Amino acid sequence: MASKERELRVKPINNGTVIDHIEAGQALNVLKILGIGGHTRHVVSVLMNVPSGAMGAKDVVKVEDRELEPEEVDTIALIAPRATINIIRNYEVVEKFRVAMPRNVIGIIRCGNPNCISNSNEPVSSRFVVESMDPVLLRCSYCEFVLDKNIADHLL
Amino acid sequence: MASKERELRVKPINNGTVIDHIEAGQALNVLKILGIGGHTRHVVSVLMNVPSGAMGAKDVVKVEDRELEPEEVDTIALIAPRATINIIRNYEVVEKFRVAMPRNVIGIIRCGNPNCISNSNEPVSSRFVVESMDPVLLRCSYCEFVLDKNIADHLL
Repeated sequence: MASKERELRVKPINNGTVIDHIEAGQALNVLKILGIGGHTRHVVSVLMNVPSGAMGAKDVVKVEDRELEPEEVDTIALIAPRATINIIRNYEVVEKFRVAMPRNVIGIIRCGNPNCISNSNEPVSSRFVVESMDPVLLRCSYCEFVLDKNIADHLL
Repeated sequence: MASKERELRVKPINNGTVIDHIEAGQALNVLKILGIGGHTRHVVSVLMNVPSGAMGAKDVVKVEDRELEPEEVDTIALIAPRATINIIRNYEVVEKFRVAMPRNVIGIIRCGNPNCISNSNEPVSSRFVVESMDPVLLRCSYCEFVLDKNIADHLL
């Protein structure tokens, strides 16, 4: 049912990466994490709220002619822990993996402590250690601030 | 060629609105103008950088089961003046129109003057008069500030 519904919306891509099983509502945040803004040079398709048997509703992102590496996509786990990555070549899925929560999250999330050095004008990237995965608990490496909810609202 | 390329990516929708011929790079701004965030309840498809015969590359936004009214979409003309709106019922295009630049733009664009009352904490929506369409020239109804470039960067 899920794949049939999706088939109605977007046909397979020739080459590239399909990020499937994104929590509904998180597709635009996934683009943000991947650094895909309006002016990407790749063809990108975004599907929001597609009916999904397993998830009720889900989002899907397809990036053509770009094969995303695990280290590029793992941070997606912060906001879409069930996301699956499919690498497509010549319409075939040649590789499939789940996102795996990274141990450190660097330069992606803003620290919730306004006095943290990573929020100052210093040339310092934000840096968190992932202390727990389910539920997500991040600790700032500079000021020890703990971030454990609304992670998506803290995307830089 | 253009429709063939698109056909490769997204099949027709059953009911709803297709916004076609959006300037490449502006799809996410179109969502912003329409107030479609991550948590829309409609199924939404976004295509970025689709090859287009007439435009080189274009973006497309499809909103299922929602028929957008001209007054909802006209503000899109600010950032995508060539956009066309197709209303779909039962897989047929029942209405097709171009976006038409509105005479006033209210609550969509931030005034570039930091001292403008619309940038204060007063309960005042930003308000611009469209003085010229091509190129776009907007004048703030409160402080007369003129906005004539990078309109998309001033979206609220």
